Amino acid sequence: METRTRILSGIQPTGSPHLGNYFGAIKQHIELQKEGDCFYFIADYHALTTIKDGDALRQNTYEVAATYLAFGLDPATTTFFRQSDVPEVTELTWILSTVAGMGLLERAHSYKDKLAKKLSPMVGLFLYPILMASDILIYKSNLVPVGQDQIQHVEITRDIAGYFNNTFGETFPLPDYRMGVAPKVPGIDGAKMSKSYDNTIELSLAGKALRKKIMSIVTDSKTVEEPKSPDNCTVFILYSLMSTEAEKLALAERYQAGGMGYGDAKTLLLEKIEDKFADFRMRYAKIMADPEYVEESLRMGAMKARSLAAQTLTEVRSAVGFRA
Amino acid sequence: METRTRILSGIQPTGSPHLGNYFGAIKQHIELQKEGDCFYFIADYHALTTIKDGDALRQNTYEVAATYLAFGLDPATTTFFRQSDVPEVTELTWILSTVAGMGLLERAHSYKDKLAKKLSPMVGLFLYPILMASDILIYKSNLVPVGQDQIQHVEITRDIAGYFNNTFGETFPLPDYRMGVAPKVPGIDGAKMSKSYDNTIELSLAGKALRKKIMSIVTDSKTVEEPKSPDNCTVFILYSLMSTEAEKLALAERYQAGGMGYGDAKTLLLEKIEDKFADFRMRYAKIMADPEYVEESLRMGAMKARSLAAQTLTEVRSAVGFRA
Repeated sequence: METRTRILSGIQPTGSPHLGNYFGAIKQHIELQKEGDCFYFIADYHALTTIKDGDALRQNTYEVAATYLAFGLDPATTTFFRQSDVPEVTELTWILSTVAGMGLLERAHSYKDKLAKKLSPMVGLFLYPILMASDILIYKSNLVPVGQDQIQHVEITRDIAGYFNNTFGETFPLPDYRMGVAPKVPGIDGAKMSKSYDNTIELSLAGKALRKKIMSIVTDSKTVEEPKSPDNCTVFILYSLMSTEAEKLALAERYQAGGMGYGDAKTLLLEKIEDKFADFRMRYAKIMADPEYVEESLRMGAMKARSLAAQTLTEVRSAVGFRA
Repeated sequence: METRTRILSGIQPTGSPHLGNYFGAIKQHIELQKEGDCFYFIADYHALTTIKDGDALRQNTYEVAATYLAFGLDPATTTFFRQSDVPEVTELTWILSTVAGMGLLERAHSYKDKLAKKLSPMVGLFLYPILMASDILIYKSNLVPVGQDQIQHVEITRDIAGYFNNTFGETFPLPDYRMGVAPKVPGIDGAKMSKSYDNTIELSLAGKALRKKIMSIVTDSKTVEEPKSPDNCTVFILYSLMSTEAEKLALAERYQAGGMGYGDAKTLLLEKIEDKFADFRMRYAKIMADPEYVEESLRMGAMKARSLAAQTLTEVRSAVGFRA
């Protein structure tokens, strides 16, 4: 049996990925492959809480899968799959819902935030922490890489696993989380890069389309001659994410010296992105043109994931009193 | 394809069935077999909201299954199965939860009643109307026989089916309900016969054990000589449920005439029950001794139910954007 750490993470199928997705999650996901047995799933059950268009969801799922494969996700070692290809998680979700108190979900930040914004949230949104617990527990995961806003979800998962173990006997290991050290990635308007703010720079962009995006990045209105501050400049921050320490210092000096316009900085950023993601774009285009490869990779992952999920469910079903 | 009405009903696996279960539900279920294609499932997913003991749940499920078979449920024509043998309903439950508003469940009587009694209900209890909607819709049922307290659940199901159809295209027929005309069945203390009141007369009882139960039925303290009122007498009400009109009138006259003690009435009731359920008890004992027959019947039902559920889910998964 496996002794390596089992690392689980879900990926939102939000469509064509952007720089924010890359530095915020994809990069870490790819690197984590060295550290343990990774289980990465495209969270399409979860996506139903926001996407109500079958074709859009299928297209998003496909683009996200192609992106990870193009960045070097190895489907032979990482278990990479569509969440909905393992329907066992929904069965475990129901079972866990019978040992999870309402208070646990009512206190969830993600729900309280949504409640504050909308008048009538859907049940799926409320229920989502149990689906997440089910995703984590069904593979008996040890480690969940998270952002600050997801720590509570892992804590809820530990609570639910504890309730289940206490009621029906030791079944689930309690998972740990690890806070990622993802940098902040501003969008073209300076706010956090996010599809919902419509300020993204897609990873698949190049040439004219990329130039147009980069040139539209909002800066202050200092003249060419004036010295400029790199610290709060979106162009500089994005450039820094992809540069060596020396390149970063060199550009910072040109900002502070004056005599360089934002147009020049934007051109440097443009070249940097073109260069940094050149290999990715080539592989991405090739993979997007090969739906069978994507499908085959996801199916291989689903088979591995499903067989493990079925093992766990056999234990769980027997413990609660079903035909195992 | 089928053109007969598809009738769906869930059966609680509450253990050894009693007179209240028989007159309240089993009798109607058996009779309904003539009217349409019946889908009857033992609601063990639902039972997890109250039963937290695997062996007890398995035993209850088995006893309830044997009871229905002994009363003449025909597993060759009625689709009779364990709810948990069709895990597809839990997948549909998740999917429906993403189109059902929180308000719909917050208004459910069953949840409000529980909320009034307990401090911290489980999520499964809150979510239960969506599981029920899923049970009904996954078989595209036309008709759901209900008691007064379940009308709202069918209405919730119609609402959820409507939301889904509007969002993803016409998929589910809207089910109708039919109010049963179940008589009131008092327990040995005069309150409604119910396992939770510990006042039941089990269908499997006979001989000394049955006599002891019947003799413990609470009556008023009129002497043998006094005339008695049959109308509010538990002994008389139970006797009436199993008697011809003539037998009923004859006993009522003896009540009103005086000179008959409650002991005599109880003996009449005892003989009536012994007689009425003699065939049942014989068949029940035989079936309880033949676990393979029970298991085989349930598996045959599960195969039929699952194949239909899988068809519906293929449609649903394709509509929402999963691999169909």
